[in-house]
Amino acid sequence: MRQLHVELGERSYPIYIGEGLLNEVSSYFATHGISKKSPLMIVTDEKVAPLYLDAVTASLTADGYSVVSAVVASGEQSKSLANLELLVTKALEGGLDRKSAIVALGGGVVGDLAGFAAASYMRGVKFVQIPTTILAHDSSVGGKVAVNHPLAKNIIGAFHQPEFVLYDLATLQSLPEREVKAGLSEVVKHGLIWDNAFVDWCIEHAGDLVAMKPDALGYALYKGCGVKAQVVSQDEKENSLRAILNLGHTIGHALEAVAGYNELLHGEAISIGMIGSAKLGVRYGASQELLRITTLALESCGLPTRIPAHYDTEEIVAAMMHDKKFSEGTVVFVVPTEIGKVEIKPDVPVQWIREIIEELKQEG
Amino acid sequence: MRQLHVELGERSYPIYIGEGLLNEVSSYFATHGISKKSPLMIVTDEKVAPLYLDAVTASLTADGYSVVSAVVASGEQSKSLANLELLVTKALEGGLDRKSAIVALGGGVVGDLAGFAAASYMRGVKFVQIPTTILAHDSSVGGKVAVNHPLAKNIIGAFHQPEFVLYDLATLQSLPEREVKAGLSEVVKHGLIWDNAFVDWCIEHAGDLVAMKPDALGYALYKGCGVKAQVVSQDEKENSLRAILNLGHTIGHALEAVAGYNELLHGEAISIGMIGSAKLGVRYGASQELLRITTLALESCGLPTRIPAHYDTEEIVAAMMHDKKFSEGTVVFVVPTEIGKVEIKPDVPVQWIREIIEELKQEG
Repeated sequence: MRQLHVELGERSYPIYIGEGLLNEVSSYFATHGISKKSPLMIVTDEKVAPLYLDAVTASLTADGYSVVSAVVASGEQSKSLANLELLVTKALEGGLDRKSAIVALGGGVVGDLAGFAAASYMRGVKFVQIPTTILAHDSSVGGKVAVNHPLAKNIIGAFHQPEFVLYDLATLQSLPEREVKAGLSEVVKHGLIWDNAFVDWCIEHAGDLVAMKPDALGYALYKGCGVKAQVVSQDEKENSLRAILNLGHTIGHALEAVAGYNELLHGEAISIGMIGSAKLGVRYGASQELLRITTLALESCGLPTRIPAHYDTEEIVAAMMHDKKFSEGTVVFVVPTEIGKVEIKPDVPVQWIREIIEELKQEG
Repeated sequence: MRQLHVELGERSYPIYIGEGLLNEVSSYFATHGISKKSPLMIVTDEKVAPLYLDAVTASLTADGYSVVSAVVASGEQSKSLANLELLVTKALEGGLDRKSAIVALGGGVVGDLAGFAAASYMRGVKFVQIPTTILAHDSSVGGKVAVNHPLAKNIIGAFHQPEFVLYDLATLQSLPEREVKAGLSEVVKHGLIWDNAFVDWCIEHAGDLVAMKPDALGYALYKGCGVKAQVVSQDEKENSLRAILNLGHTIGHALEAVAGYNELLHGEAISIGMIGSAKLGVRYGASQELLRITTLALESCGLPTRIPAHYDTEEIVAAMMHDKKFSEGTVVFVVPTEIGKVEIKPDVPVQWIREIIEELKQEG
């Protein structure tokens, strides 16, 4: 088993990564001082529930925990205020009190929704993350939780750190291939912003990663979470450095908004967005090699690098203007300068972005 | 003008209390570094909007601020997730970004709703409180913000401290007499938990307070906010001491839930609840004088001290069991020991509470 530490003062917490950890899930709860006197609520989705909910519940109840569960639909549309209300109903009916914990068992959607419920139920209760996707290696580290609004993603949320993150690699084996590839998008991103050697490693081991070989996967998640943890430790509330984690997300979120949720997976949209960011980097003077390696890394993992031609450029630009990373009316972008290094550009010309979006469509 | 300081480390903030402060509202925003580059959103209700919204907006826009406003219905039912969604819609349409501030102009309902919007919009933006009721002297200090759920009040919320609180005594003159009295309930409460000399002062000046004499009112709010600020400074997240602020609230919230929102004003329900708490104090050995002075103080301010006879005792008890102050299945109560002193009793027999509720009904 690998273990990482996310350093956040009194809100510090560990990430456990290994195979078969779910078999002994209750011991982690006890170790972390989660009270057995107060009910827990496990939040999961329709796809994950049949696979792991019974096992997790059984482990916890056998050890003296009282468990309530809530199962939401799979997919981004579940990150809604309606589902927040539903979770609070279940929590109240289940008798959850201020010493209870809310547990996210699933991918990023479940983590974000359950996390915001934990952040706001009784003004905040304990939160535990049990991610079951590769993509969630990103969202489960750093405490950003949120639900969507019809006009914008992740716009209603909080910073709420978990007590611990329990990553059982065995749960990843049930993922469809498309989701595996989409999950690798954020893994590659962590290399692109922080660690050029890790990008090389990803290119070299892309075959093993797509094939879900446990050794490669365990290492990739350990490295990906490690980069995220380092960045978050230095800037918990995204005042400065943490913004680099948004590489590819400005275009990516806009693509998701224009596509309608679920037409493009998050990781796929981010992959295209990172190609756009690399193109922007080249415009700012980076070498063409930056674009070549970025494209190679993402294509090796089977990820899309082009915008479908039927997407409307102006719609994409308009969606970006709603993105919360636009501060005080200027266009802020995370721009790579070389592999493993990025900088924040506060005043990117909107026309450049428009042209890059056109390029991303025409090369497709 | 009187000024108080709420000491909360990097989240410290001042409370300004005086007459006519709204005339120079924009200068306070500038002093506190609220950016003029990002739009502000003023949240208010249908009763307050016609009285003060134009003046506040005019002062801010004259000084270079860009202002969006959102007007919700008056009353507790406005503290809903539906209104949170509405405010976020307005904020997005108005272009509010991460450097924007959300301003509560109104009573406790507006403060709680706008405050939770500020806490969760983009995971937290700046918040300013401009209370226009006496009751809001309580809710505007300490950073507790929340919306209601059909099954429980204030159950979805956050701790989110304002940048500053601006209390213009002139705005209180428009309050109906019933609301003035209800507001005095929390003023008296701050005396009952912390300052017996202030309780004596309230009894002596109750006539001036009910008549809204500015000198008396300014002093009462200064003292009430001061007690609240001291308690909150010592325990921001309600781990221990802060719970004493809930004197009267366990029974009070249950009465509000059973009455249906708005049949009993919050301050009225809390007044009855504080009589119940004093009765509990007597059962634990306090002198009858505690009950006599508590009753005198509240009755002097024209507040109810009895439960309407048609309320169902078991419904009230059931509603209390949903209250979030019940931790780990035991019944926790704030119990006065003498005027100006309270303690937290973790294991109050439910049967005692049932008997006290019956007494409160029969004496009515």
